[in-house]
Amino acid sequence: MNPAADITPQPDAMRTILALVRQGLSQVEASLAKLADTDDPVLGPMLSTVLPGSGKRLRPALALLVGRMGEVGADPLNHMALGVELLHTASLVHDDIVDESDTRHGAATLYARVGNALAVLVGDYLFSQAAQECVATSNLDVVRLFAETLGAMAQGQIDDANGQLGGRHTWQTVSREMYYRTIGGKTASLFVLACQGTGLLVGMSQAQVEGLRTYGQNLGLAFQVIDDILDFTSTEAELGKPVGSDLRQGTVTLPVILMRDRQLADGRLRAAFETDDVELQVRLVLESGAIRAAHAEAEALVSRARSALKPLPAGVERDALDALASYVTHRAR
Amino acid sequence: MNPAADITPQPDAMRTILALVRQGLSQVEASLAKLADTDDPVLGPMLSTVLPGSGKRLRPALALLVGRMGEVGADPLNHMALGVELLHTASLVHDDIVDESDTRHGAATLYARVGNALAVLVGDYLFSQAAQECVATSNLDVVRLFAETLGAMAQGQIDDANGQLGGRHTWQTVSREMYYRTIGGKTASLFVLACQGTGLLVGMSQAQVEGLRTYGQNLGLAFQVIDDILDFTSTEAELGKPVGSDLRQGTVTLPVILMRDRQLADGRLRAAFETDDVELQVRLVLESGAIRAAHAEAEALVSRARSALKPLPAGVERDALDALASYVTHRAR
Repeated sequence: MNPAADITPQPDAMRTILALVRQGLSQVEASLAKLADTDDPVLGPMLSTVLPGSGKRLRPALALLVGRMGEVGADPLNHMALGVELLHTASLVHDDIVDESDTRHGAATLYARVGNALAVLVGDYLFSQAAQECVATSNLDVVRLFAETLGAMAQGQIDDANGQLGGRHTWQTVSREMYYRTIGGKTASLFVLACQGTGLLVGMSQAQVEGLRTYGQNLGLAFQVIDDILDFTSTEAELGKPVGSDLRQGTVTLPVILMRDRQLADGRLRAAFETDDVELQVRLVLESGAIRAAHAEAEALVSRARSALKPLPAGVERDALDALASYVTHRAR
Repeated sequence: MNPAADITPQPDAMRTILALVRQGLSQVEASLAKLADTDDPVLGPMLSTVLPGSGKRLRPALALLVGRMGEVGADPLNHMALGVELLHTASLVHDDIVDESDTRHGAATLYARVGNALAVLVGDYLFSQAAQECVATSNLDVVRLFAETLGAMAQGQIDDANGQLGGRHTWQTVSREMYYRTIGGKTASLFVLACQGTGLLVGMSQAQVEGLRTYGQNLGLAFQVIDDILDFTSTEAELGKPVGSDLRQGTVTLPVILMRDRQLADGRLRAAFETDDVELQVRLVLESGAIRAAHAEAEALVSRARSALKPLPAGVERDALDALASYVTHRAR
């Protein structure tokens, strides 16, 4: 599978972006394939199901774009891009355990294939590979941010479990602040690592590194808000899982929170959430204007991300980061 | 609980060792308590059940002893000792998931208390904390070894699952080499991190760092061999779990391998292993002389560990490492 294919909803803008990082992404893809190509008769097949050709490669693309703006050899930059993607993959392996997910994008998860125990260990193994790639950049600031990111992601997932019905909260008590804290940890922290971490690696100024942090943070939040919107607005075929999966597993996301806080549902809210009828709940969200309200928040986040790019040197790379931010709110999956 | 209490089977020798590292161990204990003392209403109670006062602190004691032999401030050394202990704790949290263990040393495991999903995430969180402590030593070689250790431990656990009956192997096919490779990853690698990692941190010579690696490797192997012997020779009260737990979960360890390879069981082996009668299997191991043979291997490993200490500066610390190695084969649990 061509990694380019997945992040090309607006062919013209995206073609430019991908031309800039195509070589680096090919390198990442080759390294992932090589990692999976081990003689170990148990580990090898498991790595082959999660590593090669399986994702959008959006996070390494971000790292590679930022890397082009500074002074650094191809080697450290490729280690950085690979480390970011491996950390992403490791976290997906564990997320599928936590969510007891049997499929992801329509394919069987590692958890479904090999069971709980081995999936836990393969995730740990991938955390190690990710850490080793970050260490191979030889930049202690990068490694520090990596270590913090790992913790932020786990904390975000713990918050997520906490916010789920059956955790400490109900659809009535999950706050907008709690939602953003949760997705900041579980999703945005990795975008921050890709952007800020690479800024540190290529020796950018403090103002530029701060700009990249803000860009990554807001881009990551917007990305997750859109993901949570798509869980209501997509079809099952597009999602590779049933519509309303978040609600089915008790996760209350931004559309529901906004519908509740802004009283968008004309008093029908309590009735819908007193049943287990997820289809009814999804219909209510779609009819209430909550999707439009959530989209507006994503647009505001994207606009904050784009503003944060100002300190960066003007050029095709900055334009590409700018275009990528817009893409996030327009993507279909 | 006083961490000193647990590693004091031979009061005189141990008193000397512990006097050398008491201050550092107290610092580790205080840092662990502080880590658990978070405001987070979900994470806090979970960390409190796994972090403070729960272990032997053997691995940080090793790091602190090695640290006393070189030139390094108290701060980096404490980060190292804490990082090693946190990595150990994180791996135990995931091991209990992998083994579906409800109790450890007689107390409920985190897995039993909070379930699979949260235990996976708390383990990940602790990997992050461990990584952050290693990064706080500001020594990239230490962090590199940490990252490799994380992978070696996961690989060892995967090998372990592979060697279990129901995995790819049976009691007839698990080889001695496979056994040592497995315990080298799952147990000895962490002893190597504690010893070699601290040697790197305090700027020892290459010969000394190599010596510490060999010491840690062989000490760790011996430690696990004894652990696997105790699973046959201890009482349920001493173990905090049933005698023969390894066999019960299908794990074939050194005593069984030696009994088979050296034909110590007078032909009764196949009959015992064709049943599910673990008590019969345990009795056969005890009667066969396999325990004595395994003990001899542990003694040989300890002797290799002690020889590897030669390049280190003579003094109370080297004597203490030497005494600790002997302790390993004499410990009761």
